[in-house]
Amino acid sequence: MNRRLRLGMIGGGRGAFIGAVHRMAARLDDRYELVAGAFSADPQRSRDSAAELLLDPRRSYGSVDDLIKSEAARTDRIDVVAVVTPNHLHHAAAKKSLDAGFHVICDKPMTTSVADAEDLVSTAERTKRVLAVTYNYSGYPLIRQAKAMIAAGELGELRLVQVEYAQDWLTTLLEAEGQKQASWRADPKQVGAAAAVGDIGSHAFHLAEFVSGLRVAQLAADLSTHVAGRKLDDNAQMLLRFANGARGSLWASQVAPGNENGLRLRIYGSKGGFEWSQEEPNHMRHAPYGQQPRILARGGPGLAPIAASGARIPAGHPEGYLEGFAQVYRDIADLIAAYDSNSSPAAGAQLVPTARDGLRGVQFVHAAVESSRKDAAWVNL
Amino acid sequence: MNRRLRLGMIGGGRGAFIGAVHRMAARLDDRYELVAGAFSADPQRSRDSAAELLLDPRRSYGSVDDLIKSEAARTDRIDVVAVVTPNHLHHAAAKKSLDAGFHVICDKPMTTSVADAEDLVSTAERTKRVLAVTYNYSGYPLIRQAKAMIAAGELGELRLVQVEYAQDWLTTLLEAEGQKQASWRADPKQVGAAAAVGDIGSHAFHLAEFVSGLRVAQLAADLSTHVAGRKLDDNAQMLLRFANGARGSLWASQVAPGNENGLRLRIYGSKGGFEWSQEEPNHMRHAPYGQQPRILARGGPGLAPIAASGARIPAGHPEGYLEGFAQVYRDIADLIAAYDSNSSPAAGAQLVPTARDGLRGVQFVHAAVESSRKDAAWVNL
Amino acid sequence: MNRRLRLGMIGGGRGAFIGAVHRMAARLDDRYELVAGAFSADPQRSRDSAAELLLDPRRSYGSVDDLIKSEAARTDRIDVVAVVTPNHLHHAAAKKSLDAGFHVICDKPMTTSVADAEDLVSTAERTKRVLAVTYNYSGYPLIRQAKAMIAAGELGELRLVQVEYAQDWLTTLLEAEGQKQASWRADPKQVGAAAAVGDIGSHAFHLAEFVSGLRVAQLAADLSTHVAGRKLDDNAQMLLRFANGARGSLWASQVAPGNENGLRLRIYGSKGGFEWSQEEPNHMRHAPYGQQPRILARGGPGLAPIAASGARIPAGHPEGYLEGFAQVYRDIADLIAAYDSNSSPAAGAQLVPTARDGLRGVQFVHAAVESSRKDAAWVNL
Amino acid sequence: MNRRLRLGMIGGGRGAFIGAVHRMAARLDDRYELVAGAFSADPQRSRDSAAELLLDPRRSYGSVDDLIKSEAARTDRIDVVAVVTPNHLHHAAAKKSLDAGFHVICDKPMTTSVADAEDLVSTAERTKRVLAVTYNYSGYPLIRQAKAMIAAGELGELRLVQVEYAQDWLTTLLEAEGQKQASWRADPKQVGAAAAVGDIGSHAFHLAEFVSGLRVAQLAADLSTHVAGRKLDDNAQMLLRFANGARGSLWASQVAPGNENGLRLRIYGSKGGFEWSQEEPNHMRHAPYGQQPRILARGGPGLAPIAASGARIPAGHPEGYLEGFAQVYRDIADLIAAYDSNSSPAAGAQLVPTARDGLRGVQFVHAAVESSRKDAAWVNL
Repeated sequence: MNRRLRLGMIGGGRGAFIGAVHRMAARLDDRYELVAGAFSADPQRSRDSAAELLLDPRRSYGSVDDLIKSEAARTDRIDVVAVVTPNHLHHAAAKKSLDAGFHVICDKPMTTSVADAEDLVSTAERTKRVLAVTYNYSGYPLIRQAKAMIAAGELGELRLVQVEYAQDWLTTLLEAEGQKQASWRADPKQVGAAAAVGDIGSHAFHLAEFVSGLRVAQLAADLSTHVAGRKLDDNAQMLLRFANGARGSLWASQVAPGNENGLRLRIYGSKGGFEWSQEEPNHMRHAPYGQQPRILARGGPGLAPIAASGARIPAGHPEGYLEGFAQVYRDIADLIAAYDSNSSPAAGAQLVPTARDGLRGVQFVHAAVESSRKDAAWVNL
Repeated sequence: MNRRLRLGMIGGGRGAFIGAVHRMAARLDDRYELVAGAFSADPQRSRDSAAELLLDPRRSYGSVDDLIKSEAARTDRIDVVAVVTPNHLHHAAAKKSLDAGFHVICDKPMTTSVADAEDLVSTAERTKRVLAVTYNYSGYPLIRQAKAMIAAGELGELRLVQVEYAQDWLTTLLEAEGQKQASWRADPKQVGAAAAVGDIGSHAFHLAEFVSGLRVAQLAADLSTHVAGRKLDDNAQMLLRFANGARGSLWASQVAPGNENGLRLRIYGSKGGFEWSQEEPNHMRHAPYGQQPRILARGGPGLAPIAASGARIPAGHPEGYLEGFAQVYRDIADLIAAYDSNSSPAAGAQLVPTARDGLRGVQFVHAAVESSRKDAAWVNL
Repeated sequence: MNRRLRLGMIGGGRGAFIGAVHRMAARLDDRYELVAGAFSADPQRSRDSAAELLLDPRRSYGSVDDLIKSEAARTDRIDVVAVVTPNHLHHAAAKKSLDAGFHVICDKPMTTSVADAEDLVSTAERTKRVLAVTYNYSGYPLIRQAKAMIAAGELGELRLVQVEYAQDWLTTLLEAEGQKQASWRADPKQVGAAAAVGDIGSHAFHLAEFVSGLRVAQLAADLSTHVAGRKLDDNAQMLLRFANGARGSLWASQVAPGNENGLRLRIYGSKGGFEWSQEEPNHMRHAPYGQQPRILARGGPGLAPIAASGARIPAGHPEGYLEGFAQVYRDIADLIAAYDSNSSPAAGAQLVPTARDGLRGVQFVHAAVESSRKDAAWVNL
Repeated sequence: MNRRLRLGMIGGGRGAFIGAVHRMAARLDDRYELVAGAFSADPQRSRDSAAELLLDPRRSYGSVDDLIKSEAARTDRIDVVAVVTPNHLHHAAAKKSLDAGFHVICDKPMTTSVADAEDLVSTAERTKRVLAVTYNYSGYPLIRQAKAMIAAGELGELRLVQVEYAQDWLTTLLEAEGQKQASWRADPKQVGAAAAVGDIGSHAFHLAEFVSGLRVAQLAADLSTHVAGRKLDDNAQMLLRFANGARGSLWASQVAPGNENGLRLRIYGSKGGFEWSQEEPNHMRHAPYGQQPRILARGGPGLAPIAASGARIPAGHPEGYLEGFAQVYRDIADLIAAYDSNSSPAAGAQLVPTARDGLRGVQFVHAAVESSRKDAAWVNL
């Protein structure tokens, strides 16, 4: 590496949650510098955000089109665009960026329709640009450890995948109180066909397939809304059937008081089981069948290379959400470098969720909605 | 109380698990004395068991009929019969005991068919005898605390019930190795229409309804068998819909490596949530929405009377499975006393699972089997 | 075994904590029957207690001397006396019982003076009777597992022993409010030279030596009293030096809010470490140096025979304080059987704390008091 | 803020641990840009490190003097120097930097002698520059929450402070194997009079005083070395007496297998207690006496402003060691801004450990060594 990647951002202005996260993730390992942005549809807000971020005012843009056109014309133009808008704007921003020759980092779910997602898959292939989707939980070192051990057969034949993602922040009708995060996430026009299922269910789904290496063949979903006045789902229970015959269930909820960000994954096979919780991501329980369970530690002994390389600091010095997110950014930088140099991507870069994973997530959301409309009938996926 | 209840036992000879548990539970609070038994269909095994238990050899019987007939003829005859045989023998033993005027304590599931269960309900009503079913997890003080708080509205309107019961002891084909517990539990003739669902799913189901005070109106169940050669289910995932509109899921598994006896209950309402795990039964997490979660301790501050009275020893001195089981035995003794004296039962005695709860459990097992046969269609319950 | 041991009890009447614990412990494994008692110095209270316990009124005694004299004269006389009075009465009751030919089970600390403790050691030796001291925490299966593994060298050379016992129930001047447990424990005349150090410090000390197999050679103790009006220590910090060069510290406190009964033991050697907490006694953490830590479970895989045999019920079905206490009672029954038959005691019986352990505990209490009076100077032990 | 602070670094070249940590901490909140460095006494290593860090090669210096002289001459000169060398080099680097007019961020312990520490205190005062010492654990939001609640009297009168810092990475003679971190930390010439006590004991000591607001008046320390061939302490147990009469103990160890970075703080007062562990820094237990303990969450409800402002992301999205370290860097930036503008520092900036805290830490190390040489006699502090 002889320079940092130049990063432009679409969305993520003042008061946004995920834009700030992307920026911290980009900074942590020093592989990017943020140099341009169209942070808001409101030009003043966009400029104010740019000023706070110490950007050159000339690279603070009032629209996506401006950003793309102006940056494309610069010799020091951006390498990659981070799309961190509400969901319904992802497709256009990502497509235009790819077509302009920029790599793209897009938040999830990638689009609000399957057709749009398929379009981005083909656009990325056509333009030969990276389109990474930030399923950030895949960046945790112990998640990668679990994936590596399963791929190596250490759990034997997989039988069960239990995944859940429980929060409580929508226990009341927060979207009616003007809370920015809640407002767009509860609005069918901005968020798409599902709310909790798209926002957090899609993470749970990705993680289950990512770690297990299995594919969900069928799901039966019961979406529900528990707060009067809410337009979309705030809770969903699902049955899962995997292609290899494994079974599972998925629970996503934003109305479960006492759960902050309770993404939990448990996988069981004929030889053992794993249990991992996002809220305590530095340890994972591995129970080889018939033996004493072991506690695997990020940075600790006995890890696969892909997990060992993911620890910035030694075991016992906890890393968290931002570090996991930063890992994905680091791997995206490696993937971009491989694209740009026509070389083979490093092991971590191969784990980056790309457009096909983004499409898979959108398909999941739509399958869940379809199943629920059919009273939890099985839907193929 | 001016004497201990005289207890006879059917089943539970040498090598049995649950028979020994019933005996310890009966002893702990000194409300019973075991004086008679028909411990095994094998007369020598029955006699040996009786001798080990220091019983009067004349009260060691070779058959259920012998026990009932001989005891009925004694002036110091038994008050109550504990039925701890494999499931398929429960109905006959319980019915004959009731008809002979004995109270009955029956292990769960109460019977192997709904018709038999209904028959025991009417027999118990006709004979005016107690028929208690040992859904022992209802004896834990903090489970009762949760029930009391929910009944008092402290969680608000209930929205979600997540219950699971995960074990790993049947990860291999243990029943083929002559392990006594596994053998009968895996045999459709002895265990009934379902294995894991009946053995542990029924506990999870009872606990969910017991604590929440809600009734499951519909379930959609996907039963599965993950070990080649096994005849019945060793795993089940279910969606639950409660009569009040709450949703939930139930997972029961005996093939989840690393899970010893993982019965976990989580209930969420509009005002807060509870989380409790049987493996650490002395504490429960209560999260009032928008406030800091609190840790409730058995024997600790702020408990309802029904929970406070259930602690034999102070907080920090852990009680466990046997103490919870013993609580149910203690309450059964109180219930029998109330029957025998035509008085109103104490608060704890009112919580004793009786024949109607036994029937409900059998209905649950059969509904789950039916739903699974219909590819997880909704079945009313 | 062809009969239960007949048990008499001195102390432990209505309202007492530890007397009820001894009775439950004696009942659980059915090796004893309580047949006689002098439960209180107040004859009416003693009779009432006996009636509640369904004893033959003729074996309810008004004094220790009555009990001993009358029981000694019976053909069905008691085998063993449990002494569960306040500390200052232990010596006389135990000595008289031994001299009358009874085995004795004595609560801890064994006496209030070293001279009395030495006297009981010689009395027990002279009378060839069992004098067991209920350091009940030694009965937990995983404590025995730790002891066995250390003895087998699995931790290598021991270097560090950190033990603590923290409670909070004396955070206020409870003894001034007439609370029975607090009153005698805070009274120098009944409890001896130290309060917290004797009541709970002695448990911590015994456990540290019991598990490690090491002897404390020197201690430096800083006893303190944090509640105005209290006469004795409610907190103590100590430095420990073991005979083999290992170091450690001991903390005992009854004024640490949020600690219920926080007895915790951590032992580290050149090859690994153990961590165990009494409040979650069914699991222990074993960290072999440089490897992933393992979670050992009571009743789980890989246990030494002495630990495996101590589980009444399978892993995941938690046992607790009463079960650990009952284990000591069970082992005492085996030890008495070995004495009575002049045979070699079973492995568990060899672990029973006896008069010499009782003496050691009293020496510890007095060494701590002496050190503290000398401003935490080192005192040999 | 209208520009980032320009940061120079002394030490922290390739293979160093803490240098990389400082750089990540400086980057995370985007308040600094690293522009210069003298990363190693080895010029090639220094240049290579600078190149890896994408520095302008002209600002990669071969010595501390070079860096200071050259930077002082630039118009875009650095604002602040981070000193991350082994301990024995801190004093000279910090003093020269201060004298050249730079602010200084110095790792801990600040110096290897009390005289040097006093000299830095007076140098910082004389030069009117910030000298911050990275007691980074003070940056955790919940640590600040605890400090705020104690200051507000929520624990009542403080009685007990139990602090420990246990690791296991020096269980073997790692310093003999060429491991860079172990080598200098085990060498009296580089590390000073104490090893474990200086490296981690000083953190524990700082945290105890920082949170409690109390001062240790006396300590009695027993330092020990458990690995043959090691020159300095790898373990220490201490008794603490605080100025207000509170008592405590401190344990620091690097030979406790199974402990990764086990910094734990427990504080108890007349009204309640706190328990916090660095390895799970996102939650803290608060037990108001006589009430149910509460779990405080970083980013959760009910926090003091100083703690609430420290969370970059919502509760349930764990932050860790780097985020806590970055908090201190952020606050240092605010403190520097206040110095440079002669304004009053913000609340967070007032918590930055400065030269006096650095001195206090060095005094602690020397008091512990002195006490241990006197066989754990009390030493005033």
